[in-house]
Amino acid sequence: MVGDLAEKTSVRAVLEIRKAGESEIRVMTKSSTVDLVTKTDERVEKIIIGSLIKEFGEGTHCFIGEESVAKGEPCILTDKPTWIIDPVDGTTNFVHGFPFVAVSIAFAVKKQLEFGVVYSCLEDKMYKARRGKGAFCNDEPIQVSDVKDINKSIIISEHGTDRSPEKVKKIFSTMQKILCIPVHGLRGSGTAATNMCLVATGAVEAFFEIGIHCWDIAAGAVIVQEAGGILLDVDGGPFDLMSRRMVSANNDVIAKRIIKEIEIFPAARDDATPEKK
Amino acid sequence: MVGDLAEKTSVRAVLEIRKAGESEIRVMTKSSTVDLVTKTDERVEKIIIGSLIKEFGEGTHCFIGEESVAKGEPCILTDKPTWIIDPVDGTTNFVHGFPFVAVSIAFAVKKQLEFGVVYSCLEDKMYKARRGKGAFCNDEPIQVSDVKDINKSIIISEHGTDRSPEKVKKIFSTMQKILCIPVHGLRGSGTAATNMCLVATGAVEAFFEIGIHCWDIAAGAVIVQEAGGILLDVDGGPFDLMSRRMVSANNDVIAKRIIKEIEIFPAARDDATPEKK
Repeated sequence: MVGDLAEKTSVRAVLEIRKAGESEIRVMTKSSTVDLVTKTDERVEKIIIGSLIKEFGEGTHCFIGEESVAKGEPCILTDKPTWIIDPVDGTTNFVHGFPFVAVSIAFAVKKQLEFGVVYSCLEDKMYKARRGKGAFCNDEPIQVSDVKDINKSIIISEHGTDRSPEKVKKIFSTMQKILCIPVHGLRGSGTAATNMCLVATGAVEAFFEIGIHCWDIAAGAVIVQEAGGILLDVDGGPFDLMSRRMVSANNDVIAKRIIKEIEIFPAARDDATPEKK
Repeated sequence: MVGDLAEKTSVRAVLEIRKAGESEIRVMTKSSTVDLVTKTDERVEKIIIGSLIKEFGEGTHCFIGEESVAKGEPCILTDKPTWIIDPVDGTTNFVHGFPFVAVSIAFAVKKQLEFGVVYSCLEDKMYKARRGKGAFCNDEPIQVSDVKDINKSIIISEHGTDRSPEKVKKIFSTMQKILCIPVHGLRGSGTAATNMCLVATGAVEAFFEIGIHCWDIAAGAVIVQEAGGILLDVDGGPFDLMSRRMVSANNDVIAKRIIKEIEIFPAARDDATPEKK
């Protein structure tokens, strides 16, 4: 069963991440000093994909993984059974020892997300959900918050890794407007996968971001929905996994109130042709 | 020994907080919907102060506690042995189930901080330090990060509970400038006591805030210094526990770089006479 396999694979990945965390962390520069990537990311992704290929055989399943895409593999979601993987979500946190680092593994068939596992390594919490079967944290059922009053909400978001002035300005402007609705508070864990799980457990009412990738949120998307939450595009339209834009919330009321304040900026789709990126 | 007693008292407080977290949380409004206070805060502060009075007798020690001050008790640090207490730092987090909630207990004699305990309840981490004796997390020695390059740092801060437009504007402007130095990232746990411990363990390089209170940071101040870090005023001058302004950092280089970007706004001192507040 793919669900059990995803869980087992995430446990193996977490052991590898913990081992690396204890030894010297070697950092390589990716696109900027902000978007860190370590040898661990690459090794863990290889372990995850290797385990899955061993199980299902070469060529039967597709894989979209952060590190593979960084090396030039395509990032297109087809109708084939597809695993969408972030081996270490929160690499910056990982390098610094900040307590939110997650493995994210999702599985889709015919472009429909079927299963998601987010393993928050340092907290030792495994979040999982299967379409139609509910969401769980360490095997206990979880559900989103029932808050409908935006003034009683906590909203979570991230500043992202892009430091171009016009994007940063819009991100801060949006956050400031949301804070002043007012809401109870703004938070940011530094990992999108964990942020989605915080929505799913009801610790926060909503998480939104422009610039996230499909591997950051695919598993979390199943978990939020199965915990009773919703996903929308930042313009209020339907959620699109490859669009790099998302609002996940406990309900429609909170989501739509947040959407009113979001200043949208362009982000090239994950499945855009390379020349358009 | 005051250190042992502070530890024991923090454990008792944490048990009380956990018990409350499991039952229905009853929320009372304090100054605004943002600054939440629960029955738990009051009960836990009573337990802490009650335990200490039982040990030392009535009148020998002074107490500065968030809830007592809220009820009109004075907030003046004298030369007498004084306990500075935040029963539940991160009340908003507590009410929402966001994973950072801490008990903070510090002890000062002749205005000198001697001992601090921060017990991060949900993570189950007890941070402690005694002046001149090092800092510990769950009895393991901790130390600040050795990063001196601001571009490799994570900085932590909070938006505070005051939503007045001029303050919010300065807070966001400061955060935006710091992000664009650039740094690796900005974070916010929602509790000052935990933020200080994140500096002490090296997970972040610096934490700064205007508007914090002495009970939020007194225990953390000992822990950061004993972990090898430094404390300064937001204008670069000496740290003043009652000033409601602070930069805590792993070193002088990081602290001074951050200070360059901080837009200062007024905050009435904790020990100001009531009419000046």
